[in-house]
Amino acid sequence: MDIMSRIESSLSLAFTRAQAPSGPPLLAAAMRHAVFPGGARVRPRLCLAVAAACGDDDPNAADAAAAAIELLHCASLVHDDLPCFDDAATRRGRPSVHAAYGSPIAVLAGDALIVLAFQILAWGTIATPKRLGSLVLTVAQAVGIPNGIVAGQAWESEPKADLATYQRAKTGALFAAATIAGAAAAGADPQPWRHLGESLGEAYQVADDLLDAVSNPSESDKPVGRDAALDRPSAVRAYGITGALSLLESLAQSAADSIPNCPGAAPLRTLIAQEARRLVPASLSHAAA
Amino acid sequence: MDIMSRIESSLSLAFTRAQAPSGPPLLAAAMRHAVFPGGARVRPRLCLAVAAACGDDDPNAADAAAAAIELLHCASLVHDDLPCFDDAATRRGRPSVHAAYGSPIAVLAGDALIVLAFQILAWGTIATPKRLGSLVLTVAQAVGIPNGIVAGQAWESEPKADLATYQRAKTGALFAAATIAGAAAAGADPQPWRHLGESLGEAYQVADDLLDAVSNPSESDKPVGRDAALDRPSAVRAYGITGALSLLESLAQSAADSIPNCPGAAPLRTLIAQEARRLVPASLSHAAA
Repeated sequence: MDIMSRIESSLSLAFTRAQAPSGPPLLAAAMRHAVFPGGARVRPRLCLAVAAACGDDDPNAADAAAAAIELLHCASLVHDDLPCFDDAATRRGRPSVHAAYGSPIAVLAGDALIVLAFQILAWGTIATPKRLGSLVLTVAQAVGIPNGIVAGQAWESEPKADLATYQRAKTGALFAAATIAGAAAAGADPQPWRHLGESLGEAYQVADDLLDAVSNPSESDKPVGRDAALDRPSAVRAYGITGALSLLESLAQSAADSIPNCPGAAPLRTLIAQEARRLVPASLSHAAA
Repeated sequence: MDIMSRIESSLSLAFTRAQAPSGPPLLAAAMRHAVFPGGARVRPRLCLAVAAACGDDDPNAADAAAAAIELLHCASLVHDDLPCFDDAATRRGRPSVHAAYGSPIAVLAGDALIVLAFQILAWGTIATPKRLGSLVLTVAQAVGIPNGIVAGQAWESEPKADLATYQRAKTGALFAAATIAGAAAAGADPQPWRHLGESLGEAYQVADDLLDAVSNPSESDKPVGRDAALDRPSAVRAYGITGALSLLESLAQSAADSIPNCPGAAPLRTLIAQEARRLVPASLSHAAA
């Protein structure tokens, strides 16, 4: 099975196992709306790529880690889109969850997706139960306090926020979890994989800032120009477009260079280079070429 | 250490381990506001009472289970109080989290408390890692879809909701998790403990409905008369005050009768009887005597 099919199957399986006719239908529908169809599934692809590079001796554990990380990403999007945050009416070209189902169900869908992520980890490690603790802690650290994605979002409510701290939490943390959990799910020492995830997370955040600053609405699947409108910290606002492009390039290089020696290092390096090219907004790709 | 000190220590330890100066301060303050000072801590007391009745051979695991369940309860209160749900300005006689910190931080505090609950379970089972899977699944089932507390809250957004299904999810699920997790944390077979938690959860929900219907604002630490005002299902609205009082009594009896044969059965039965008396609103205690 190719990597995208594995991810979609693992996500579908989570819903199949968790849903039941006895549950409230709108909540389940809203959760599915948040997860399917997905975006680029970049975090779970990264997680499975690292698991593969480490030998992938328990594919159920790796699939669970990948799906958990994607569900947590989707949960954060649902809550970030709420009227009290970005008040985004659309997401991935469709109504956002609160626009389609209302704010109460959107709050609850985010909550239930977080819970489902941890549930998946327990289901996926039945054959390798000693890996569960490390996976739970990796994922929790990436989402909670002090430096996970929820903490990252909370910096937007602080009177002062350091750009690097904010972005490391808001985006980098879940990327780091993707590589660390990929290694942990395959029974490998996870710490050498942290730098790869952190660098890619930073690169991805810089790319997101670029997209927000330079896109036409037709080029982006999100509202554009929001960082300036909402006075949010951004790499483009801090360093300008050229500076942000250079930063993106050096982060991708640093990521590729950090890959530990392992049987699957070469295909993983190829994947990282592809991702880095994909991250540059189309209207700027001549400048980065 | 007495049972309340164990709970408060375990909750404090969770924050000590999870917080760091690098994190956003408002989020951490809002999370603490949601958890300290607590209410009656009825769910974690129940969890530790069951663990004690089962021998409590790993107190760290039991403390973690109790604290996780209390954090999830607190998280649900923070989100339930949001303007898009109950819009409650006060909770336990103080400003609610969104009233004190704003809705964005309240949404995030609830999210981070859910994450912290799972993190605690992993920390608490280092000596007994085989118990982690069962604890994660027990807690996740009590909170997520299809029948956990988040699903219970979601029934309020459905055009039709069955009262028993709604209350079992909204309140019963976390009580059932308290008894099941207490047994699982002590290495005992958890399933015989389910009925105790479910019955007490139902009793507690009926007591809450009675309090909402009959209290003076000075007798309750929550806004009163909300069920009728918001057209929410309620045992008092379904059966009247006398019917609800009888139901409460028979549920408490059924709970006490269900306690499995174990060394600590007698003190546990005493505790259940005390709880049942405490649940009847003061203005009705003559009617229930």
